[in-house]
Amino acid sequence: MAAKDAAPLALVCGGGSFPMAIADSALRDGRPVVLFAIRGFADPVAVERYQHEWIHLGAAKELTSALRRRGCRDIVIVGNVLRPHWWQIRLDWMTIRLLPRILAAMRGGDDHLLSRLAEFVEEQGFALLGAHDVAPDLLVPAGVFGSVPPRPADLEDARIGLELVRTLGPFDVGQGVVVAQRHVQAVEAAEGTDWMLERCALLRERGRVKLPGRSGVLVKAPKPGQDRRVDLPSIGKRTVEMAAKAGLAGIAVEAGGVLAVDVEDMIREADARGLFLFGLDP
Amino acid sequence: MAAKDAAPLALVCGGGSFPMAIADSALRDGRPVVLFAIRGFADPVAVERYQHEWIHLGAAKELTSALRRRGCRDIVIVGNVLRPHWWQIRLDWMTIRLLPRILAAMRGGDDHLLSRLAEFVEEQGFALLGAHDVAPDLLVPAGVFGSVPPRPADLEDARIGLELVRTLGPFDVGQGVVVAQRHVQAVEAAEGTDWMLERCALLRERGRVKLPGRSGVLVKAPKPGQDRRVDLPSIGKRTVEMAAKAGLAGIAVEAGGVLAVDVEDMIREADARGLFLFGLDP
Repeated sequence: MAAKDAAPLALVCGGGSFPMAIADSALRDGRPVVLFAIRGFADPVAVERYQHEWIHLGAAKELTSALRRRGCRDIVIVGNVLRPHWWQIRLDWMTIRLLPRILAAMRGGDDHLLSRLAEFVEEQGFALLGAHDVAPDLLVPAGVFGSVPPRPADLEDARIGLELVRTLGPFDVGQGVVVAQRHVQAVEAAEGTDWMLERCALLRERGRVKLPGRSGVLVKAPKPGQDRRVDLPSIGKRTVEMAAKAGLAGIAVEAGGVLAVDVEDMIREADARGLFLFGLDP
Repeated sequence: MAAKDAAPLALVCGGGSFPMAIADSALRDGRPVVLFAIRGFADPVAVERYQHEWIHLGAAKELTSALRRRGCRDIVIVGNVLRPHWWQIRLDWMTIRLLPRILAAMRGGDDHLLSRLAEFVEEQGFALLGAHDVAPDLLVPAGVFGSVPPRPADLEDARIGLELVRTLGPFDVGQGVVVAQRHVQAVEAAEGTDWMLERCALLRERGRVKLPGRSGVLVKAPKPGQDRRVDLPSIGKRTVEMAAKAGLAGIAVEAGGVLAVDVEDMIREADARGLFLFGLDP
């Protein structure tokens, strides 16, 4: 195991299995890792398997002190902290002093908030990296995965979807759309990909959208101009399950711009359900 | 009652109360009206109050014959024919001969289909008009309605929404979006405005979106380049009820580009619930 960098990589981790996938990838690459697990969000059982520290959401001073104590320089922030309760947030003095900047940043959309976060991290002498920087093997590459090839009409739908996500970029709207037979079925905004796919399933169930057999493509891509160090879109086995329930023919993502945590499981699921998986050249 | 045109206006009418609002407006204007009520969709009780003929969905020859028998030249198509069952559709010989053109048009998005429809109507010697041509008093004008004024921040959200609807135009996506505190909450595609507003209500109920008090604006506007003779967006009392449930501060529409069937009821509802109604200068 040849450490590429003596300083351990800091993974500030919220919920879900994503942080562990990133940690495993970095460790495979020979880089030591410390998880800074956010209380109430990070999975306590999974976290135990790694070097870790528990931190409170919102406690900037607690985090920066822990990072320095562990000798970390590079930070990756990963995992969800959706819907925090007030009692899960602990504002320390450093955070309170930062509040005016945080509130100002919150007015300008997610991208704005995230770039302010990166700015703060760097002011403190750390470097904010993206999951793709430390675990490039998790990025979906170009071409077909699994055993189901997309039909030409599917690729046409996929291209329309990619174009749409790019057009939506300046509005800081979601990174996912569903296109079927050249018609846009759904556009993801604050609800997230899962809700959007549930909606697509309902649209067909209730006959509001009529489509033959498996048709339609879920397209995911990062917003243009988005800071890719935070909140890169992702897909996984669950995405495939939900796309299948929605009656879609497959999933297309921007190659190199979307993460997959559980590629083998995802491909197995897609093959079993007859869905294609495709990485679109950007 | 001074008939502006000897030929009665033909209103091909689907479901909902919209066709009757258009008919009343044209009649008030001194123009005779015949409803061509689509079986299974038009409201049989409401239709009885007007000169009318019953027709089958999909029977082009039946319709054109009835139109000629009644001496109609100008046609308005209005009301919904959502989710028809196969037994409600009767394809006559004329329709069957048109099928290749219909199917080709269906590949190109709603706008494309509608402009083909207008083309067909005109080939047959009729003129396709929009609801706004015969009932301009139903178009929402510019400015504030009712007693609740929008705040500057609401108007900012409304402007972002209008810009977004316009940007989505080339993709033939829905005519409605919800913007709150400069963030896009929801984009309407195949699901329609009601579902989108239900989703916004759920997003807040489940804490996925956190907003103080009444905030956010429903914005509706016609797609740029859309043939306004068919499918102009509309709002009404029900829209206000649903926007209120979603916790929104109000509704803003493109002035002159959106129909309101029940303006008085709608304003009364908005006033009672504390929502603003605003017509945005295009």
